[in-house]
Amino acid sequence: MNVLIVYAHPEPTSLNGALKDFSVKRLEDAGHTVRVSDLYAMKWKAPVDASDNTDHQPETAFHASLDSKHAYANGTQSDDIAAEQEKLKWADAVILQFPLWWFSMPAILKGWVDRVYAYGFAYGVGEHSDERWGDRYGEGSMAGKRAMLVVTTGGWDTHYGPRGINGPIDDILFPINHGVLFYPGFDVLPPFVVHRTSKMDEARFAQTSDALGRRLDELWSTRPIPYRRQNAGDYVIPEGTLREDILPGRTGTAVHAVM
Amino acid sequence: MNVLIVYAHPEPTSLNGALKDFSVKRLEDAGHTVRVSDLYAMKWKAPVDASDNTDHQPETAFHASLDSKHAYANGTQSDDIAAEQEKLKWADAVILQFPLWWFSMPAILKGWVDRVYAYGFAYGVGEHSDERWGDRYGEGSMAGKRAMLVVTTGGWDTHYGPRGINGPIDDILFPINHGVLFYPGFDVLPPFVVHRTSKMDEARFAQTSDALGRRLDELWSTRPIPYRRQNAGDYVIPEGTLREDILPGRTGTAVHAVM
Repeated sequence: MNVLIVYAHPEPTSLNGALKDFSVKRLEDAGHTVRVSDLYAMKWKAPVDASDNTDHQPETAFHASLDSKHAYANGTQSDDIAAEQEKLKWADAVILQFPLWWFSMPAILKGWVDRVYAYGFAYGVGEHSDERWGDRYGEGSMAGKRAMLVVTTGGWDTHYGPRGINGPIDDILFPINHGVLFYPGFDVLPPFVVHRTSKMDEARFAQTSDALGRRLDELWSTRPIPYRRQNAGDYVIPEGTLREDILPGRTGTAVHAVM
Repeated sequence: MNVLIVYAHPEPTSLNGALKDFSVKRLEDAGHTVRVSDLYAMKWKAPVDASDNTDHQPETAFHASLDSKHAYANGTQSDDIAAEQEKLKWADAVILQFPLWWFSMPAILKGWVDRVYAYGFAYGVGEHSDERWGDRYGEGSMAGKRAMLVVTTGGWDTHYGPRGINGPIDDILFPINHGVLFYPGFDVLPPFVVHRTSKMDEARFAQTSDALGRRLDELWSTRPIPYRRQNAGDYVIPEGTLREDILPGRTGTAVHAVM
C-alpha cells in the first residue's frame, strides 16, 4: 500500500523526527511504499494568498475559495499545491504527524491544509441541493483512504482526559479528525498521542515506538472512528442537524459518532 | 482604553476587511486607541523555527520551547516577536479577527500564536508544584485584559449549532477561546460569529456591522465566558482534573465553564 506522512517539526533530531523515521522504516519493512512531506525541509509556504492561483489577475480582488476553485479547475494552481494533491491521490493512507502547539497543528501544517485542500478537491465537491449538501463527511475525494494523526504533547495525559483542564483530547482534535480528515472522505483512525514529551527517556521511547509500530501494523485493520456520514440518513438536509430521534437532547462533538 | 486587533485576511476589500475597518472606526469614535496587526500586510512569518531565537547556535538542535524560553529571558527574540508582545502588554483588550478555515485559524494567525506566545510570556509562567500548575487558565501575563474572537464562516449557522454536523461552534472554538486566550489569563468574551458569508448583501452587512458595533460598545461590560480558574479550587492539582464533586460524571468542553 502507499502511505503519505505529512510531517511538521522544525528539528530532525527531535522526538517527532525519531518517531517519523521509525514509522517510515516500519512501514517500508512491511512492504509498503512511503512518501514523506517534510514541511519544514520543503520550506512549505504557509499562508494562503493570491500567488496560489497563477492565473490571478492583480487588478482583481483575491477571493480564497473562488480563486482556489478557478485554479483547481483550470490547472493554474501553484506547483507546490498540485504536487501535494498528487501525493494525496496516490496514497492509500495518510498520516499527519505533528507536535500539538496551542491545542492545534503548527502553523506550517495548517498552511498545508489551507492551501492543498482546494475548492473542488477537498470541498465544494458534489451536488449541493435540498437533498444533498455536497460529498462531504464520509464522501468526497478521499473516500476509501484511511488517515491517522500522530501527535505529541508536552502536558500530562490527565490534563487531556475526559475531565482534564485542557479539554478532552478527542474534543481538541475534533476540528482536525472530523473537520479536516472526515470531511473530504477519509476513514479516520483513532489518533496516536504521546503526552509529556519532556519526560522521554530510552525505555519510554522504546515503549512508545513499539506501540506506534503496532498501530502502523494495524493501519488497514483498525476500526475507524464511527463518525456519521452526512448523506446516509442521520442528518436533516440542508440544515445539517442530527435527526431529533437520534440521541435526543444530546449535544457536543460526541453525537457525531455512532455510540 | 487600548485595543489591539490581530487581523488575518489576505484581501483588504473582503468582508473581513470591511468589518475590521468598521471596528477600528467604531472603537476610535468611542475614544479608544486602536492598533492593528494586519498579518498579511506585515508579511508575518508563520512557521516557528531557529531564527526566532537570534542567539540560537547552528550546531545545536533547535528546541521550540527551550529556545523560546532562552530568547524571551535573554532578549534574543527576533524583533517581530518582541514587537507583538509589546502590543499585547500595551493592550487592555485584544480582538482576533479571522475567517474560519478548516475549523480553525488561518495558518498565518496560528503562526502568530505559535511564535508570539513565548515560554515565560504565555506559558511556563509561575510556580509549578504539587499545589499550583503555573499561572495559567485565568492567571498569567494577560490577566486583567479582555479578548474576543470575531470570526466569519461560509457555512450555515445550523451546521454549527448544538447538533449541527460541523460540531457546535463553541466546541470548535474551544481550543482558541480556552486554550489560546484563557490559558495566558485573558477574560474571554463570547465570540462574534458571522455565518454564510457568501450570502452577504448591503442590508445584511448593515445588520452585521450594527451587531458588531454593539459588541464593541460593550467590550468592557460584557460578561466573560465563565471558564473555571485552574488555581481557584475546582481542579485537582497536579493532575489537572475537575474535582469529582463538580458536575459529577459529566465530560466534554462545557464542564470547564461554570454553568
